[in-house]
Amino acid sequence: MAFSLEYFSEIVDDAISAIDYPKTAPRLFDPIKYTLQSGGKRLRPVLALAVFSALTHRPAEEAVNQAIAVELFHNFTLLHDDLMDNADLRRGRPTVHRKWGANTAILSGDAMLTLSSMYLAKGAGSHLAKLDESFNQTAMEVYEGQQLDMEFENRDKVSVAEYMEMIRLKTSVLLAGACRLGAIMADAEQATADAFYKYGLALGLAFQMRDDWLDTYGDPAVFGKAIGGDILNRKKTWLLITALNESPEELPAILAEDLDDDEMIRQVRDVYDSLNLGDRCEKLALQYSEDARKCIADLKIDVEALNFFNKLAEEASRRNH
Amino acid sequence: MAFSLEYFSEIVDDAISAIDYPKTAPRLFDPIKYTLQSGGKRLRPVLALAVFSALTHRPAEEAVNQAIAVELFHNFTLLHDDLMDNADLRRGRPTVHRKWGANTAILSGDAMLTLSSMYLAKGAGSHLAKLDESFNQTAMEVYEGQQLDMEFENRDKVSVAEYMEMIRLKTSVLLAGACRLGAIMADAEQATADAFYKYGLALGLAFQMRDDWLDTYGDPAVFGKAIGGDILNRKKTWLLITALNESPEELPAILAEDLDDDEMIRQVRDVYDSLNLGDRCEKLALQYSEDARKCIADLKIDVEALNFFNKLAEEASRRNH
Repeated sequence: MAFSLEYFSEIVDDAISAIDYPKTAPRLFDPIKYTLQSGGKRLRPVLALAVFSALTHRPAEEAVNQAIAVELFHNFTLLHDDLMDNADLRRGRPTVHRKWGANTAILSGDAMLTLSSMYLAKGAGSHLAKLDESFNQTAMEVYEGQQLDMEFENRDKVSVAEYMEMIRLKTSVLLAGACRLGAIMADAEQATADAFYKYGLALGLAFQMRDDWLDTYGDPAVFGKAIGGDILNRKKTWLLITALNESPEELPAILAEDLDDDEMIRQVRDVYDSLNLGDRCEKLALQYSEDARKCIADLKIDVEALNFFNKLAEEASRRNH
Repeated sequence: MAFSLEYFSEIVDDAISAIDYPKTAPRLFDPIKYTLQSGGKRLRPVLALAVFSALTHRPAEEAVNQAIAVELFHNFTLLHDDLMDNADLRRGRPTVHRKWGANTAILSGDAMLTLSSMYLAKGAGSHLAKLDESFNQTAMEVYEGQQLDMEFENRDKVSVAEYMEMIRLKTSVLLAGACRLGAIMADAEQATADAFYKYGLALGLAFQMRDDWLDTYGDPAVFGKAIGGDILNRKKTWLLITALNESPEELPAILAEDLDDDEMIRQVRDVYDSLNLGDRCEKLALQYSEDARKCIADLKIDVEALNFFNKLAEEASRRNH
């Protein structure tokens, strides 16, 4: 077995293809299949499988249902978030509510959440109570993160600490929770499960910081989409929030102006540059990825597994797309 | 202990008041509290507690978390259904999406579903796997029922058999599922759990048939709202579906006319009357309530408990509001 992203994500993809949907109301499940088919990195289920494998040396397939539960949950949140954000596209394809309407997006999302709960229980054996508790707590935190995100969009001022707490909830806890499910299935000691949980948290923050950076400072040719979307949407990223806090007069004045898109992006980026925010954001991502590596440095796992987790953290903060 | 609706619903109300909500994003939970406060019959949690009590003679409180899980799930479906149906009022108060907006309704509904899963697991002990399986299956069937209901609204022709299957899924399985949770918590034998499950199914059908009847033939003074709403909304009830099947020319012509409300109600009801649908609908409700009683007639439970379940079935098909 190669301890690699490709290896684990193939197990995930196979299991997703094999999902057995109820037959009564097929149209309820078409949007779920559509959402799952759109791919993505499968990062969360891969984390669950990798943690399980690192701790047991047993076939990753033993934890595949729990990995699928996380992927189903993640895609359910994307489906409902896209509706709430009124987004048109997801990974280059029309979002579910654009394709089938809002009601289908609501109901199929609900079904996806319950399907995820079904997979969590599948083959869980004596671990079910722990899995349930971990999973439900994570789910609730993800909603809290989304709630805070929506509230922040309507607020003039958000502190950096508040922003970090929001992305911890909205993004990081699910990566951490995925790691924890793998650890629970592996019967890991509490300290080991906690170490992987913290690794996932830091990994998520590294990911999100790099995300914020890429949207403003990425290379459009490599990034795969236009640069500056966050600026044009006034999205409260780390860059915007920090700039609003450190340059409380200049930036709001620019944002209130009626500039064309390129000029708006240029002027806002000038403010960011004057505060050295690009560098600071990049360094923050690197620091979180370093934190992630430290969380698991002392665990007794094979070097191959350790390298896998370290490389994942490294890539989260250095990726260009 | 008095084996009564009041007794059990007080236990439910107390437990609902004591729900401990996470603190991070309070606004996420305000709509959940609001929804739960609006009352209602608490029929589903009462059923769970009553079945548990009938089978164990132990304090109903031992199954209260699972009862609350069902009530949370039920209210979550109402919250999302109201949004999908674009309903303005629920039990005389503005619906959540009218009061807080669609996004809050979506997200708080999601949180309510996860909260319900948390309560299901609370104090479940060795029953968790069975509870989980039963609950998730029921949840999925409820979504399938809602999906069919939405599809039927856009279809010209729906058979009575299809309608009965839809209300079985949308309404009955949750009453049946509530009974089954109580039976699982009571460690009941499979045959006993099945008997109560079937009782819940028949009870739900009796309820729904009486619902359809009341909206057209009820006494507005007792019913508490205007009569004929279903007719004006072209809602595909048992009455309308049966009439469309048995009078395929007359009824569509009337429905297509531009009549004022009272006249529309009068003319449609004339068609119903010519087919004797009011009587037939009432009798169907009574028949289902009789079926419900038969399902549990041979169980070894106290006469007080048996009377309680029989009276509930009786009332479902005879109630006037």
